[in-house]
Amino acid sequence: MNAMRDLPLARVFQLIEPGPVALLTTASKGRANVMTMSWHMMMEFVPPLIACVVSPADYSYNALRTTRECVIAIPGVDLIGKVVDIGNCSGADIDKFSVYRLTAVPAKKVAAPLIAECLANLECKVVDTRMVNKYALFILEAVKAWRNPARRERRTFHANGDGTFVVDGRTLDLKKKMVKFPELV
Amino acid sequence: MNAMRDLPLARVFQLIEPGPVALLTTASKGRANVMTMSWHMMMEFVPPLIACVVSPADYSYNALRTTRECVIAIPGVDLIGKVVDIGNCSGADIDKFSVYRLTAVPAKKVAAPLIAECLANLECKVVDTRMVNKYALFILEAVKAWRNPARRERRTFHANGDGTFVVDGRTLDLKKKMVKFPELV
Repeated sequence: MNAMRDLPLARVFQLIEPGPVALLTTASKGRANVMTMSWHMMMEFVPPLIACVVSPADYSYNALRTTRECVIAIPGVDLIGKVVDIGNCSGADIDKFSVYRLTAVPAKKVAAPLIAECLANLECKVVDTRMVNKYALFILEAVKAWRNPARRERRTFHANGDGTFVVDGRTLDLKKKMVKFPELV
Repeated sequence: MNAMRDLPLARVFQLIEPGPVALLTTASKGRANVMTMSWHMMMEFVPPLIACVVSPADYSYNALRTTRECVIAIPGVDLIGKVVDIGNCSGADIDKFSVYRLTAVPAKKVAAPLIAECLANLECKVVDTRMVNKYALFILEAVKAWRNPARRERRTFHANGDGTFVVDGRTLDLKKKMVKFPELV
């Protein structure tokens, strides 16, 4: 994956904070899987902490719980059809990487694979499982991040929960109003 | 607020899942305050559980922690200037409702006010504080929800974390691909 470039960990929050639909990959017993995820948020800038809900009804749940590793990948809207299909089938039945022709790329710090076709990939370790039994809430730390500047379609998309999705529209620049985090502006 | 209409609690997740920038109101000692928030996510459909990060550095933290009540309001992009300004000042210094000319409307089940100018308002109670000390993570239950069909501007917006924001663009309908949650499609 020559297209992958380092993304500083301090910028991870900029991928998650806008709330895009994401993919989550796991690897267990030598087999990779991927699910679609919309319930996730940032919890801390550095080290980047991310909360996400992965239900016991999701086939990925056991892999995430036992391996304590995953990759969060951010797809562009060019992948929306695949992303929706991935969210509507189970890794118990099929090899989703094969069926949906996604390219699994070895990660550096976790066994779960990166997805070559995505805009960014975050290698994550589970750092807190205290809320898993009650809420299926996993707390992850992003330990390595990648961006893929070669992808032409840069727009992400957001789930409305009813089978419709909102695609990123215009970007508005309000930097002049910001007094917080001036180092990023 | 004649413009406010009931929103079924089962549809609350459709407001939060897309990841829009939100406002969070509190009321403490007879005084209302409002902050801007982008770190939040859904945790459960019904009853609707929402996780959010409100930092001890936020003036709202003490009010949220002690009263265990708040309102999450979803602004349209017509309010983006006010929303950014609200995120760059403190309720310790000013009365934000007054300075930014927001209309505080009494809620039904919590002391924190609704915001008349927003697209939707969720009355919330704090139901779990076990992750507050370590992560500033509050778990809320939405106990009453309102929508405001009178607002003309329906587009929400998403924070990129650098002072730029992405406004909702096109809506893509992929309902035909959905097998989960068919009751919503």
